[in-house]
Amino acid sequence: MKESVIKNLKILREKGPLVQSITNYVVMNNTANALLAIGASPIMAHAKLEMADMVKIVNALVVNIGTLDEFWVDSMLLAAKEANERNTPWVLDPVGAGATPYRNETLTRLLTFKPTIIRGNASEIMALAKANVQTKGVDSTHSSDEALAYGKQLSKETSAVVCISGAVDYVIDGDKLTKIKNGHELMGKVTGMGCTATALVAAFAGIEPDPYRATVAGMTTLGLAGEIAARKAEGPGTLQLYLYDALYHLKESEVKQWAKVEESHD
Amino acid sequence: MKESVIKNLKILREKGPLVQSITNYVVMNNTANALLAIGASPIMAHAKLEMADMVKIVNALVVNIGTLDEFWVDSMLLAAKEANERNTPWVLDPVGAGATPYRNETLTRLLTFKPTIIRGNASEIMALAKANVQTKGVDSTHSSDEALAYGKQLSKETSAVVCISGAVDYVIDGDKLTKIKNGHELMGKVTGMGCTATALVAAFAGIEPDPYRATVAGMTTLGLAGEIAARKAEGPGTLQLYLYDALYHLKESEVKQWAKVEESHD
Amino acid sequence: MKESVIKNLKILREKGPLVQSITNYVVMNNTANALLAIGASPIMAHAKLEMADMVKIVNALVVNIGTLDEFWVDSMLLAAKEANERNTPWVLDPVGAGATPYRNETLTRLLTFKPTIIRGNASEIMALAKANVQTKGVDSTHSSDEALAYGKQLSKETSAVVCISGAVDYVIDGDKLTKIKNGHELMGKVTGMGCTATALVAAFAGIEPDPYRATVAGMTTLGLAGEIAARKAEGPGTLQLYLYDALYHLKESEVKQWAKVEESHD
Repeated sequence: MKESVIKNLKILREKGPLVQSITNYVVMNNTANALLAIGASPIMAHAKLEMADMVKIVNALVVNIGTLDEFWVDSMLLAAKEANERNTPWVLDPVGAGATPYRNETLTRLLTFKPTIIRGNASEIMALAKANVQTKGVDSTHSSDEALAYGKQLSKETSAVVCISGAVDYVIDGDKLTKIKNGHELMGKVTGMGCTATALVAAFAGIEPDPYRATVAGMTTLGLAGEIAARKAEGPGTLQLYLYDALYHLKESEVKQWAKVEESHD
Repeated sequence: MKESVIKNLKILREKGPLVQSITNYVVMNNTANALLAIGASPIMAHAKLEMADMVKIVNALVVNIGTLDEFWVDSMLLAAKEANERNTPWVLDPVGAGATPYRNETLTRLLTFKPTIIRGNASEIMALAKANVQTKGVDSTHSSDEALAYGKQLSKETSAVVCISGAVDYVIDGDKLTKIKNGHELMGKVTGMGCTATALVAAFAGIEPDPYRATVAGMTTLGLAGEIAARKAEGPGTLQLYLYDALYHLKESEVKQWAKVEESHD
Repeated sequence: MKESVIKNLKILREKGPLVQSITNYVVMNNTANALLAIGASPIMAHAKLEMADMVKIVNALVVNIGTLDEFWVDSMLLAAKEANERNTPWVLDPVGAGATPYRNETLTRLLTFKPTIIRGNASEIMALAKANVQTKGVDSTHSSDEALAYGKQLSKETSAVVCISGAVDYVIDGDKLTKIKNGHELMGKVTGMGCTATALVAAFAGIEPDPYRATVAGMTTLGLAGEIAARKAEGPGTLQLYLYDALYHLKESEVKQWAKVEESHD
């Protein structure tokens, strides 16, 4: 699996996939910069009048409901529908799932367009798996371990690859499971780090036909870049900036040496 | 008062209050990062369909009119109404008050829902106190001293704690007045520093029942973090990042040593 | 021309022009910070109900279609119309021109209000000049050289100053042409660097009556600040922050020493 990450990082930088994001206002700048740093080409576009034309030219799509509203949800549904019809890979980030009925209803509608990959924190994945879990805002109050069973159920129900991010990231594809133990706790003190993970996963999905491998590649490269950035960061502010530097410079040899990617066979 | 700041900083980090912001597009990322760095949990949500559900679960609310429009103003009014009915503390940031009639009308409507705290620069507070002052965009063209009388009037008229931020910050609660002399002039060269102040004030209001003390705590911790960041910053770009690091690491002993908080008895 | 840049930098810092931006969500924070760093005063405002009042008090306007939608396009048209009627200089940034018919139609409508200056990358300027060029998202796939003939045509058709930014920036005013060879390749790995260029050009247009000179001043100062930032940056993350520091500290002597501004007479 580690070899697959290395190979995909190389391919991503050669191909520079075009990734469309319909995402939240808070993280647009961060995720665009992360995509540029890793070697992808970001575009943010949500107008209904250009949705079909835009989805047609991109290699992958992100739908992130963080700052959803009545106007943007229509755009999200339109884009998801278009991506599904074209077999363009699309990644759902269910920010704040479980926090309000409106988020849950919106997610139910989005699921009908069969996301290729779903990435959330433990609370969000549990809520999405209809676990009736009480979510505290957008930060997770559950561990990834607790959410694992729910994640497996969600992957089977939706046929999507499901990623539960946290201290350990779980990537689930039906009965398959990969654990990634990279990353640094300070990353949780920077807003939108989960959204950045989703964007990177989409970038890899834009060049790697197997969404399971694409997800592992995205989570591993972000985790590694976070670790490298944390070595010199003095807090969450500097961490965020050094992270882009680290993504930009991430070497295949560093992935080989430091990636902690384990396929599980339980 | 300094002891109250220290105590509240400790409590904030233990409790991690959930702070909802309906704020402007320019600063969403900054204020979310500042809230995370100090120890709070940010959520940005403005959809009308989830407003009641969201306000119900948060500890404090920010309404900031910086990039207001016809759609968002409805959300702001709905959130303010809900917060007022639930006795959830809410902080009004009247960005650009006085610049256009539309801003003034919107502020008049928001005031009917009795903000717990109002924080603005001198020009904004003067405009809000119906002083018919000509505002130049969103940057202040008046000193805090000039605005003090207007601030007192506004506090008495609205029963809100009023904060006028500037080289010296004034926190006014009816006849009570506290002056805070922390901060650094370079902070004025970073966009959204006032909005960040508002967010931190809301975070403290989420754990401290006295809004006067909450406001003093928010303004003092931001001022101190700005000073600490300015010691190593080489300009406004690096200042912004070091500020998050400084908020994250701010020690009770540093507040004790450097806070310049004076209660006034005039 | 270099002397004109130096003179205008001095005037800009003395006058602090107020620059309104109707721009995309991704870059609002960046462009506000760049404007503050160079010495201008930014305001982001797009509400239709305050458009006439706002355009009335500003020195220049930016219209950037990056994250356009049906709601924002109305605001853009209203602002452009108002600026045109008042002879307030306005700068059009045709982000993603050519990517979708909706962007092209919107640009055609905006052009009727006669932008003072148009700044885009090679692909965008070629698309805008109706070259029927296939644009790949928002990043340029053409060199500035290829686009030069299209830029000249566009400038003659619209009477606007046209700037094609890239490794070499071209500033075109009818038959006049200035080439600027400042900047650093790492700038292309930071999102919104073109949008920042547009914002700085608008700031100079707010104090320099000749839009040709204003454009040269904006592009040159950004290029120089990028070079200075790149000397110590370790990647795109740190570059972005050091850029604001560099804009803030940019000295007239540095412009004199390092600016590579050439008037062309072909």
